Amino acid sequence: MTLAAGIDVGGTKCLGVVVDGSGVIVREVRRPTPTANLLVGVLQEIAHELGEHDTIGVGVPGLISRQGVIRSSPNMSTAIEMPVRELLSDALGEHVWCDNDATCATLAEWQMGAGVGAHDMVLVTLGTGIGGGIVSGGVLQHGAHGHAGEAGHMVVDAHGDPCPCGQRGCWERYASGVGLARLSGGLSGEEVIGRARRGDGPAVSVVNTYCEWVALGLANLANFSDPDVMVIGGGVMEAADILLPPIRQHFARLLYAPSHRQHPRVVGAELGERAGAIGASLLHLHD
Amino acid sequence: MTLAAGIDVGGTKCLGVVVDGSGVIVREVRRPTPTANLLVGVLQEIAHELGEHDTIGVGVPGLISRQGVIRSSPNMSTAIEMPVRELLSDALGEHVWCDNDATCATLAEWQMGAGVGAHDMVLVTLGTGIGGGIVSGGVLQHGAHGHAGEAGHMVVDAHGDPCPCGQRGCWERYASGVGLARLSGGLSGEEVIGRARRGDGPAVSVVNTYCEWVALGLANLANFSDPDVMVIGGGVMEAADILLPPIRQHFARLLYAPSHRQHPRVVGAELGERAGAIGASLLHLHD
Repeated sequence: MTLAAGIDVGGTKCLGVVVDGSGVIVREVRRPTPTANLLVGVLQEIAHELGEHDTIGVGVPGLISRQGVIRSSPNMSTAIEMPVRELLSDALGEHVWCDNDATCATLAEWQMGAGVGAHDMVLVTLGTGIGGGIVSGGVLQHGAHGHAGEAGHMVVDAHGDPCPCGQRGCWERYASGVGLARLSGGLSGEEVIGRARRGDGPAVSVVNTYCEWVALGLANLANFSDPDVMVIGGGVMEAADILLPPIRQHFARLLYAPSHRQHPRVVGAELGERAGAIGASLLHLHD
Repeated sequence: MTLAAGIDVGGTKCLGVVVDGSGVIVREVRRPTPTANLLVGVLQEIAHELGEHDTIGVGVPGLISRQGVIRSSPNMSTAIEMPVRELLSDALGEHVWCDNDATCATLAEWQMGAGVGAHDMVLVTLGTGIGGGIVSGGVLQHGAHGHAGEAGHMVVDAHGDPCPCGQRGCWERYASGVGLARLSGGLSGEEVIGRARRGDGPAVSVVNTYCEWVALGLANLANFSDPDVMVIGGGVMEAADILLPPIRQHFARLLYAPSHRQHPRVVGAELGERAGAIGASLLHLHD
């Protein structure tokens, strides 16, 4: 049975898994994410600790070329033009698959999670920032240069708040975890969600506004892609029970011509924090 | 040699062509676009007038299901749930292919026009409204319900102008031909472009603002899809010589992380008003 290793390089931790041919995680390793110059060494250690495997893949945040070069990464500002695939292949003496972390999560949710059976799917991860991935026509899409699915810097409010990327009104400013905290006027996202759960009026209102921003961006993506299913993942969705119902409500209104079409299902991701690592382990099948 | 007929149902005229196996248009028929209740009859007349053909396709504006049902169409408000494919197949006694008009234009430009050789391509048509189509991973995309490529109602200015669709700040409000006229404060698009050509300061400024709106939406779509090439068609692009340079300039700035990636080419459509009809004739090869 094939043993497929996958490692997800997250903002704070690297998570490695080995998945067997029936989709069961048989081993797991965690390490704090190091600075860019130590990344390959840490990935090498994780790979060794994961032990026997027939194939290995890595998911990395940021713009990754199809050749496995990190063009730029918001979490690792010094990793510009870093050929992580080649460096790690050389270090391990085996071929390494490499892709964007949200693309990996998309693959995992499509093959083993919330998107099983979908022919056309969009996934977005609502975390510190927003990542995304696309399945179109039954195929995981990479785009022409490996960057398909980058939804976070879609401008939705052209006269809105400045974004560190240089534009104004990027979706990420409103619909990410950081966006929720910003809408909360200084409270953390967890705190405002806790207050909303207890029925605090202003907190309920903030959460509703947040869900409307999430739905607005999802509707933009659905209008363009027309998927069967939209999967929402990322840390924010730990509160899926309170967020998904208003997101769905706003989405059903914001979609173009809502009364004249079938709507995509809007669902929460199912694989949690392991989605990226599982997807990285599957890259060898979907490159 | 295969003779493929295609008919494009436009806002004012229906244009039918027969294309031979080498891509040459061998016959062409035009008729004014009738009201929805007369549409099938007029299409039948065009098909007869086009004469001998081995296959026939039709491009229709609006949301078209994969079964060839017009779910709703901005130009034909009474054509709701109209099974145009079935009605026309019955009338002609032959199988009829049917798809959205901008999807047809995308297919034509990809196979025979500005997008030849592209693996990942986005086309937008800037006309009265905005239409669009997508090629991903070397495959023309339809989406799960036939509506892929609808870019016009992407919200880019959440607090912006109300759109007849019910939302605010849809891209179409700024970047369509109607959008250009609106930015011009009452002048027609042709008039403001004429004035800009003659160096009139305010007109140059309006055209520049218009091009920035076009580029902003294109950047949103490119961030998400990461295409090789973005093709811009539609009536507005009759002024491509004056519009493309500033569109490209703004696009190169508005794309996410512009200094850390390869940019898609931004080009004008090449097939002009016949793109939809030619694409409709090719549908049988790309369904």
